[in-house]
Amino acid sequence: MIHSIGIIGSGNVAWHLAHGFQTSTKVQVSWIYGRNKSSLDEFQNLTDVSSFTTLPSTKVDLILVCVNDDAIQSVLNQLPTDCKVAYTSGVVNLDSLVHSELNCGVFYPLQTFTKGKSIDLKNVPFLIEAHDPAFAVELKQLAAELSNNVQSMDSAQRKQLHIAAVFTNNFVNHLLFLAQKQLKEQSIDQDILTPLLLETINKYIAIGPYDAQSGPARRKDMQAIEEHKKELKGIDKEIYTLITDSILNTYKK
Amino acid sequence: MIHSIGIIGSGNVAWHLAHGFQTSTKVQVSWIYGRNKSSLDEFQNLTDVSSFTTLPSTKVDLILVCVNDDAIQSVLNQLPTDCKVAYTSGVVNLDSLVHSELNCGVFYPLQTFTKGKSIDLKNVPFLIEAHDPAFAVELKQLAAELSNNVQSMDSAQRKQLHIAAVFTNNFVNHLLFLAQKQLKEQSIDQDILTPLLLETINKYIAIGPYDAQSGPARRKDMQAIEEHKKELKGIDKEIYTLITDSILNTYKK
Repeated sequence: MIHSIGIIGSGNVAWHLAHGFQTSTKVQVSWIYGRNKSSLDEFQNLTDVSSFTTLPSTKVDLILVCVNDDAIQSVLNQLPTDCKVAYTSGVVNLDSLVHSELNCGVFYPLQTFTKGKSIDLKNVPFLIEAHDPAFAVELKQLAAELSNNVQSMDSAQRKQLHIAAVFTNNFVNHLLFLAQKQLKEQSIDQDILTPLLLETINKYIAIGPYDAQSGPARRKDMQAIEEHKKELKGIDKEIYTLITDSILNTYKK
Repeated sequence: MIHSIGIIGSGNVAWHLAHGFQTSTKVQVSWIYGRNKSSLDEFQNLTDVSSFTTLPSTKVDLILVCVNDDAIQSVLNQLPTDCKVAYTSGVVNLDSLVHSELNCGVFYPLQTFTKGKSIDLKNVPFLIEAHDPAFAVELKQLAAELSNNVQSMDSAQRKQLHIAAVFTNNFVNHLLFLAQKQLKEQSIDQDILTPLLLETINKYIAIGPYDAQSGPARRKDMQAIEEHKKELKGIDKEIYTLITDSILNTYKK
């Protein structure tokens, strides 16, 4: 069982995991290490946590590496191979990393994290992977301290899941940004879309996205589609056209 | 004040408005007319409603035209010009229609409707337009029987709002469909994305879509983006690339 952890990284994932473990009676965050001094300041209300400017030598049961994908390997290079580590990336393949095979694992929380925007980790799926079955069990027990939804998933599946998450969160949020931009140009109050958005999500959950689809492309209303295109320009028009085509394709039968 | 209405159309909008007026003590739906016999059957539990196979001659204070955009004018052609009418389209410009100018208006509910999926109309924005101020007041009073959110909006603004609604509902739903498709190919349980989706919407409402944006494109993680593109093909890959470019553009400063 893992009782003490160190966290490397001072970004959104580090912030939420560090806060999450504050309520655990079994697991203690012994230290947090980050290069960015101002980011580390945001961790100061975590009383059990010290910040270091060089990698701490204090022994912990596990080091959680919460850094950008392209920095994971260089962090591992600085850690002794007898040190157990897990990283939090959705994309990086476990086999692509050089470390002790027995002591390297994945601890991936499937959620969108922003510092200061608190979140209930209990419902967040944690996807776990490790070559050593005993280490996988330890990582799952650790995740269970934070969440009721802990699952095993290999790197190939995790990457596909990450792509689906990009569509679900990153792309959905950007479409909502484009919708708000459209209203802002017309000085229309942006809250007017909120009931529609909430019902969109209700319907998705209640009947699934295939049956929930509505709108001009779904009913092949080419007149409305042409009217809309006349009003749009640039990349917004390209996005409108491409997603409309994708909906038309989906329901062409 | 409008006390009696007839409804032309037997689709999703007609179904929801007809059900909505059932709880009004001031407004009665006198009849519903639709060409599609099987669609009309779905209205039979509305006890105060009769179905007709030819356009009813029973006098009503207002006829609500709830048909596809390209059918509105042909319906108006069959109605006497002394008859007050309002249509429920987001796109069609009031000035593009031929009817008595004084007696034609817009009664547009901004929501996604699916028959049988009940909805609380109280929060649905109703956008009203009429050239005659007295008729506009009557339409607003009528909408207030259904909703607490009734606003005036002209045709130009309504069209822009409709485009924003297409992004918010139709396109968001389709991206969620593509995300589920991605998981289905990998036999991953689709419910795994629900906590992420709910937090996406929470964050959008709490801090707005500009600040809520996260993910590879937001942090310019070109390595993750290239990894994702390798996994995608066809129109899904085109959508991934285009929305990613749009996010990169939005945060390029």
